Amino acid sequence: MIIVMKQGAEQKDIEAVVKRVEELGKKVHLSRGEARTIIGVIGADEHMIQQTTFEVMDGVEKTMRVMQPYKLASRDFSHQTTLIDVNGVQIGGKKVIVMAGPCSVEGREMILETAHAIKEAGGTILRGGAFKPRSSPYSFQGLGEEGLRYLAEAREQTGLPIITEVMSTDDIELIGEYTDIFQVGARNTQNYSLLKALGKVKKPVFLKRGISGKIEELLMSAEYILSGGNMQVMLCERGIRTYETATRNTFDINAIPLLKELTHLPIVSDPAHGTGMSNLVSPIAKAAVAAGTDALMVEVHPDPKRAWSDGAQSLTLEKFKQLMDELKPVAAAVGREI
Amino acid sequence: MIIVMKQGAEQKDIEAVVKRVEELGKKVHLSRGEARTIIGVIGADEHMIQQTTFEVMDGVEKTMRVMQPYKLASRDFSHQTTLIDVNGVQIGGKKVIVMAGPCSVEGREMILETAHAIKEAGGTILRGGAFKPRSSPYSFQGLGEEGLRYLAEAREQTGLPIITEVMSTDDIELIGEYTDIFQVGARNTQNYSLLKALGKVKKPVFLKRGISGKIEELLMSAEYILSGGNMQVMLCERGIRTYETATRNTFDINAIPLLKELTHLPIVSDPAHGTGMSNLVSPIAKAAVAAGTDALMVEVHPDPKRAWSDGAQSLTLEKFKQLMDELKPVAAAVGREI
Amino acid sequence: MIIVMKQGAEQKDIEAVVKRVEELGKKVHLSRGEARTIIGVIGADEHMIQQTTFEVMDGVEKTMRVMQPYKLASRDFSHQTTLIDVNGVQIGGKKVIVMAGPCSVEGREMILETAHAIKEAGGTILRGGAFKPRSSPYSFQGLGEEGLRYLAEAREQTGLPIITEVMSTDDIELIGEYTDIFQVGARNTQNYSLLKALGKVKKPVFLKRGISGKIEELLMSAEYILSGGNMQVMLCERGIRTYETATRNTFDINAIPLLKELTHLPIVSDPAHGTGMSNLVSPIAKAAVAAGTDALMVEVHPDPKRAWSDGAQSLTLEKFKQLMDELKPVAAAVGREI
Amino acid sequence: MIIVMKQGAEQKDIEAVVKRVEELGKKVHLSRGEARTIIGVIGADEHMIQQTTFEVMDGVEKTMRVMQPYKLASRDFSHQTTLIDVNGVQIGGKKVIVMAGPCSVEGREMILETAHAIKEAGGTILRGGAFKPRSSPYSFQGLGEEGLRYLAEAREQTGLPIITEVMSTDDIELIGEYTDIFQVGARNTQNYSLLKALGKVKKPVFLKRGISGKIEELLMSAEYILSGGNMQVMLCERGIRTYETATRNTFDINAIPLLKELTHLPIVSDPAHGTGMSNLVSPIAKAAVAAGTDALMVEVHPDPKRAWSDGAQSLTLEKFKQLMDELKPVAAAVGREI
Repeated sequence: MIIVMKQGAEQKDIEAVVKRVEELGKKVHLSRGEARTIIGVIGADEHMIQQTTFEVMDGVEKTMRVMQPYKLASRDFSHQTTLIDVNGVQIGGKKVIVMAGPCSVEGREMILETAHAIKEAGGTILRGGAFKPRSSPYSFQGLGEEGLRYLAEAREQTGLPIITEVMSTDDIELIGEYTDIFQVGARNTQNYSLLKALGKVKKPVFLKRGISGKIEELLMSAEYILSGGNMQVMLCERGIRTYETATRNTFDINAIPLLKELTHLPIVSDPAHGTGMSNLVSPIAKAAVAAGTDALMVEVHPDPKRAWSDGAQSLTLEKFKQLMDELKPVAAAVGREI
Repeated sequence: MIIVMKQGAEQKDIEAVVKRVEELGKKVHLSRGEARTIIGVIGADEHMIQQTTFEVMDGVEKTMRVMQPYKLASRDFSHQTTLIDVNGVQIGGKKVIVMAGPCSVEGREMILETAHAIKEAGGTILRGGAFKPRSSPYSFQGLGEEGLRYLAEAREQTGLPIITEVMSTDDIELIGEYTDIFQVGARNTQNYSLLKALGKVKKPVFLKRGISGKIEELLMSAEYILSGGNMQVMLCERGIRTYETATRNTFDINAIPLLKELTHLPIVSDPAHGTGMSNLVSPIAKAAVAAGTDALMVEVHPDPKRAWSDGAQSLTLEKFKQLMDELKPVAAAVGREI
Repeated sequence: MIIVMKQGAEQKDIEAVVKRVEELGKKVHLSRGEARTIIGVIGADEHMIQQTTFEVMDGVEKTMRVMQPYKLASRDFSHQTTLIDVNGVQIGGKKVIVMAGPCSVEGREMILETAHAIKEAGGTILRGGAFKPRSSPYSFQGLGEEGLRYLAEAREQTGLPIITEVMSTDDIELIGEYTDIFQVGARNTQNYSLLKALGKVKKPVFLKRGISGKIEELLMSAEYILSGGNMQVMLCERGIRTYETATRNTFDINAIPLLKELTHLPIVSDPAHGTGMSNLVSPIAKAAVAAGTDALMVEVHPDPKRAWSDGAQSLTLEKFKQLMDELKPVAAAVGREI
Repeated sequence: MIIVMKQGAEQKDIEAVVKRVEELGKKVHLSRGEARTIIGVIGADEHMIQQTTFEVMDGVEKTMRVMQPYKLASRDFSHQTTLIDVNGVQIGGKKVIVMAGPCSVEGREMILETAHAIKEAGGTILRGGAFKPRSSPYSFQGLGEEGLRYLAEAREQTGLPIITEVMSTDDIELIGEYTDIFQVGARNTQNYSLLKALGKVKKPVFLKRGISGKIEELLMSAEYILSGGNMQVMLCERGIRTYETATRNTFDINAIPLLKELTHLPIVSDPAHGTGMSNLVSPIAKAAVAAGTDALMVEVHPDPKRAWSDGAQSLTLEKFKQLMDELKPVAAAVGREI
């Protein structure tokens, strides 16, 4: 950490800062420039210090952090991409994994029909929501355990592993009886109680970036799970909130190659939420593969105009098949397969 | 809801949309303009329809919502501001209520000292965190029940009602034994499991706007609590995330008069989180009062540079006293008292 | 345009609105719903009406626009993508055009060396700034006409057409003597005086999206040039300003397929400004091609660490060659060539 | 400037950075921490270095700036607020100045009527647009010189100084013959050609913050004018673009006290553009005064629903008079007058 003193800060102000740093068990490195003095704080556990509190001390202009605040999620911790194995499906390897399915499980027939179509088209994991975080209390809230049972039946019939969302610590046990991967949605990315609890489960966690989450915050949320002992975490870019209203969110394509540099955890891309428009899903899915994503999550529905949620961004079964076909040469062009 | 058809949409497309609307039990109102046809959907429960799913139908350009999606939180529901009584302190009346205290309860002595100073300076409610949502798993996570006990003791000594944060449904019962008001933090504004559970408690809920929450989303989150049966909800503007990095957040002063128009729920302003800089707290607190806030929440600490969290935005006890003095004429200038 | 009346709006308020619409020469279409009345305004030139002024009338809740405000830039105006021919290089066709070169022309030798390397690697247009918009008045402001002469010499030697930025109406004539394409930078996207003047020139205009410009605003700025008579306009996505600080800007990949739907003008992508980091340029360039861009603009410098501007996002000559090689299979995978 | 090396950077990488710094005529200050080496660059003209180009050098993780990039605009340059005198009206003193008038000058009668009403209500400067930056080329573009003449006549009749917008270097001379203050709008905040030209005029410049401009960028734009020799610059907060769509812009109230700390230039607040809704203008104007603004700019129109532009955010003459009355006690409450 670096503490920048104001131009004209007095000697006693500098000494007070130095004293405070030393109280915290760290060493200082003083650098007196022409205009101002800079105080470097030396010590490995920089993140343990309340950096900004120095800013209330007399003569201090600002503080700047040198080290990243996450450790287990960092590339420095592991230079190799973490490989997550889900019933034989490997996320983080050469093959780009495709997770597909409806926003909500709406019934037995629809999820079975969708699962078979996904399997045939080459999809590798089945998604479907049973507990749904809806912005309105008056909207459909998911089928609950009934939905989980239908997902499990679809897995039996097709062999596709399943992923579904968990919204509360209360539901972890129940959902854990059915799902292969726990999904944490964008509204719960900083629900630390939930993250801590998922640090104790034995199954992989799929962690979405917050609606306006910074990349660093996503990595810090992952750190909550990792530091709890669960090292099977994948991170999902799903678009961020910006001033642009022409699309539902702004898919942050930069996040893909940047996360590949910063972390060893596999990266998933969600073009449905990232755009909110079904006609943009295909070009953005291709872009995500070209930029290096390890997996895709796609919303697929047999009849999007009758979907109970997210119909506007869902692909029909036919469009999904077409997307899978179109993705193959793009994956090959960047040395991957699908 | 209004469905705008594309220029050149075919008659069969229009008919398909009309048919779909009628399937959903609504009536249509067709308007054929020179360039395009507009389909109005008539019926009281507009929010029950998946509006955007019409956007996947052939010939549809876009949909537009006419009615607001919240009902119980709306000004239309109650023209009088809701008055929330907490042990005799009334939030939503002529008097601007001041909730003050440290970010975290750090120990018995510090909270007692702070509580007495707040009481003397004219503060009306004591705040303090016992369960803390920290972005790093390595940071101080709060004293837990020990912190709650100290808060309760401070209440006994000073008579100030207390408010503290709840992060998880698991903690509602325990916290409810101590606190007078449940605080929901910015990271949990859309934690619907938590909101549903708080709809069942008998104590007031203080609901913060999300870190990048829209005003409408804040009202929808309130709707979750209200529709559960708990009508004692107050809303808190605490700054939003923008591209501006000169301050921690951008305090959305517009939200105060706008919320006063849209809802009957009382509005609280949090200039500490809204700015992140202790030297900006006082001018922004005055601005919030001038703009019509019903209450303020202010972070106060006996020694901010030693605070375990949020020191950079906390006032000293002296500065808090000075703020209370300076707020009085501002409140009077807009017909309020403090 | 649609005018939504408040719940409980009085009959006289409705009549006043209807009267005002008719004064403006438009017809109304009244729709009385259960809760509120909606007034449709019928007439082709919706954009000529000050829509929002209705919002100050008694009983009006809000107004909503039905038609897009641009005409000549719209896909409705031309279903075929506009093909812009620059000395035989066609922008908007099957071939993805690559515009490359340094941020600033720093001298004769460097621009000639760079131009030859770009030519050899397969680049199709040479870029270079002679008049530079710098955020600091103390930074290098460009070589001016001297820089233009070096660009022209590089064109003579390599045959590559050139593109350079124009910042002021004063400079149009001078720059027009040298350049093949006028570039309008992100800070001038809404400099309407400049746009109007460029509507009168006979050369193509390359229009960047504003730093926080909406897609609709970009199209409206294009409309200024088009309505002046110059139909050779290409639009450039160059990243937008968001709260995310891990990258310089957030490259809005969604904008590429969305603009392809909304407009017939060719789309250029600028991954250098869209990321601000040279190591992200290559993956984002591939993503842009996969998403359907018609052209790329890339910053290339013989020695980025000595660049006078934008070094951090510039590719070396070797990296540029490598990028060109890697782009070929990606272009082929989506039916394009490069 | 501080250069942070990567964990595990090699000695030769460190030496290369040191060498490059020394080539630029600066001294280095090396600090080897436990995990990484930090290189401080010492020398007064930090802003002359292309800081980010170091980021392309091997072994460099990131760079951080220590000094602010503006000098003449800084509080360090002048501890006293600059007092700008416009025909006897002083901006920057104890009195809060109110600039009021219509968005556009629409005719002789309307501007004269408005000017007299403003004068009577206690307004101090008359505003009105003659050259208008409109997002659509099909919208009213202003009366041009005719509008300037009417403004001048209104000044003669009322004694109110006038302010009007300049959009292009071409118009400076003409507008300068009439106006007392040159206004630079939000779309031209980074039109450096215009700013440079205004650095040479002998009249005050009113500089609006960009639509999504950072506070630092606003100060850098002011620096362009100041460094040209014109020290009479006032800065205007007018709301910034955020994701919140419930209001036209988000008025950044934090900017007022923050700018008062960072710069000696007077601060103006524009609640009309900051909110876009006439019913929010009054509370936000009061908030701005409470937060310490030196002046207000308010849009006033005799008949807002017939305004040719910005009607939705304009006050009627009566509402303006009421606002002036309500502002007086607020100004007094913070030690100012109006």
